[in-house]
Amino acid sequence: MRRTTGWQSTGNSTALERVPIERRELRADDLAVRVDHCGVCHSDLHAIHGLTGKPAAGLVPGHEFTGTVTAAGASVTGFAPGDRVAVGTIVDSCGSCAMCAAGQENFCYQGATVTYGGTDRVDGTTTRGGYSREYVVRDKFAYPLPEGLDPAAAAPLMCAGITVWEPMRALGIGPGSQVAVAGLGGLGHLGVKLAVALGAEVTVLSRTPDKAADARELGAKALVAVDAAVDRFDLILDTIAVPHDLAPLIGLLGLEGTLSVVGLPLETKVPLMQLAYGRKSVSSSGTGGTKHTAELLAFCAGHGITADVEVLPSSRVEEALTRLEKGDVRYRFVLDLADLD
Amino acid sequence: MRRTTGWQSTGNSTALERVPIERRELRADDLAVRVDHCGVCHSDLHAIHGLTGKPAAGLVPGHEFTGTVTAAGASVTGFAPGDRVAVGTIVDSCGSCAMCAAGQENFCYQGATVTYGGTDRVDGTTTRGGYSREYVVRDKFAYPLPEGLDPAAAAPLMCAGITVWEPMRALGIGPGSQVAVAGLGGLGHLGVKLAVALGAEVTVLSRTPDKAADARELGAKALVAVDAAVDRFDLILDTIAVPHDLAPLIGLLGLEGTLSVVGLPLETKVPLMQLAYGRKSVSSSGTGGTKHTAELLAFCAGHGITADVEVLPSSRVEEALTRLEKGDVRYRFVLDLADLD
Repeated sequence: MRRTTGWQSTGNSTALERVPIERRELRADDLAVRVDHCGVCHSDLHAIHGLTGKPAAGLVPGHEFTGTVTAAGASVTGFAPGDRVAVGTIVDSCGSCAMCAAGQENFCYQGATVTYGGTDRVDGTTTRGGYSREYVVRDKFAYPLPEGLDPAAAAPLMCAGITVWEPMRALGIGPGSQVAVAGLGGLGHLGVKLAVALGAEVTVLSRTPDKAADARELGAKALVAVDAAVDRFDLILDTIAVPHDLAPLIGLLGLEGTLSVVGLPLETKVPLMQLAYGRKSVSSSGTGGTKHTAELLAFCAGHGITADVEVLPSSRVEEALTRLEKGDVRYRFVLDLADLD
Repeated sequence: MRRTTGWQSTGNSTALERVPIERRELRADDLAVRVDHCGVCHSDLHAIHGLTGKPAAGLVPGHEFTGTVTAAGASVTGFAPGDRVAVGTIVDSCGSCAMCAAGQENFCYQGATVTYGGTDRVDGTTTRGGYSREYVVRDKFAYPLPEGLDPAAAAPLMCAGITVWEPMRALGIGPGSQVAVAGLGGLGHLGVKLAVALGAEVTVLSRTPDKAADARELGAKALVAVDAAVDRFDLILDTIAVPHDLAPLIGLLGLEGTLSVVGLPLETKVPLMQLAYGRKSVSSSGTGGTKHTAELLAFCAGHGITADVEVLPSSRVEEALTRLEKGDVRYRFVLDLADLD
């Protein structure tokens, strides 16, 4: 086994402990990746608090990271040591179902293997995430990090970015589209940047008026409170991570508009009758597959888009989690794992 | 005032009473229509039972009817006495909002005027429906009934038909589409016919196996129980009019599939988290605007599509309502109003 170091949950606490971690010896199609930067996602908090239905104790979170290849398995042809790579929320899938065939491994009908807290398809071990100095990943689920993207600021593209990118691409958002982004956090700020770069007119819906200047800087035309909004939107990207009433948002959709709930509040009711008047839809989506992830990285390289990040040494992971819990971050914490050497 | 006769609810009972009804004198853009045939819709039952939030007593139901023009207002140019026409669920709208501009008067932002139980935009009176021998309607909301469509069997196109047609057109259903129709009743059987005529492959999802032969005759490839279905659908038209669990239906959707709930069960929860895996949508829709209604009538004339109907003299309206309540109809009751003369 390979040995590295990481940050592990003790169960329902943001105080993680620094522990030694074993990684598997490289299979033929594996890469060993030195994790340089790993984003801190709101779902890491859900997992640490045991809200995802899996044991919280013993968990090593982290599913949006960038790093450097240090070794490659015998059959790997696309990567070599020294290459910069990015890894997201999915590290394996069945490879043969219709979803995998469509490059939507995140929806694999056999169940995608997630980056931490998942079950490895070969040896049955529990996957442990990117809050660690080394990760071993199947080459198919590592992506070359394009030149010109800052490795720390690019890390959040792999979860926050792709989660807002896929629904926008699926709906054909582009010039002429009216898009609203509800909630201006990790997902939301990337949603604004990406929608603007796609050519849409973008409004931020937020209860935090002091983010108005930020919203305009990100490219939005305005930040308004939900109850003050008057536009009708083709798409509302709902990035709010806590339970909230969907009705006021559905009310702002135009004909055949879609409310895409990507913040994944764990409990929310949908007022079905309200959808009928205007033939509106409520949808959801989570992370992304290989097709859209590769596309997103190329798009971001072409448009110079990364996340606005606050980089902390990984020893300050508790601070990052605690402040994230309070919404005190603009707009994504990224851990620098170099202090684990 | 003009005088006619109709069937009126006494409040929460399927036993309607035959009453004299006044209709307004024709305005410049009005038609007087002798109602020949009026379909019996499940929402008529909701209305009679007071489930729509409006008083049930004094209601004259009926919002899918065909008839013959008997008089036309001074400015009417598109119709003349003797013309056969069809009228649906909407008889007026603001005419100036974005929905009206798009021919989606059913979603008028000022509120569409519905055919019965609505409020007339000019004189403020309560509209009374097609369970009567004469209706006075603004010409914009009367449609020429195409030659070749049986007037009795065409009446249900105006509510049941358009309700399943609009979502299919909005989603671009056509050759290559996998469509399921849940529930084989008034809406469902028209959903099958229309989806088949659009070129889709159609499956009926039903708990009533003895309708399997009917399903195939309507053009479906099979009738299966929900828990026995294995296909993945692009669209499931959910025409079930009573509360039911949406989760098993959502489970049958493929990537970016849509569950379109058009049976309008009055209370249903949407399992939001289930939508994420596959980026599925739940949508709803109700009846139709002038654009799609005119299109539907032309399509039905071209393809020889009408509803499968059981025609009863209007004096047997109670029997129709009672049997509809029990699901005992294949597939739509239509009242013949000639007995009101």
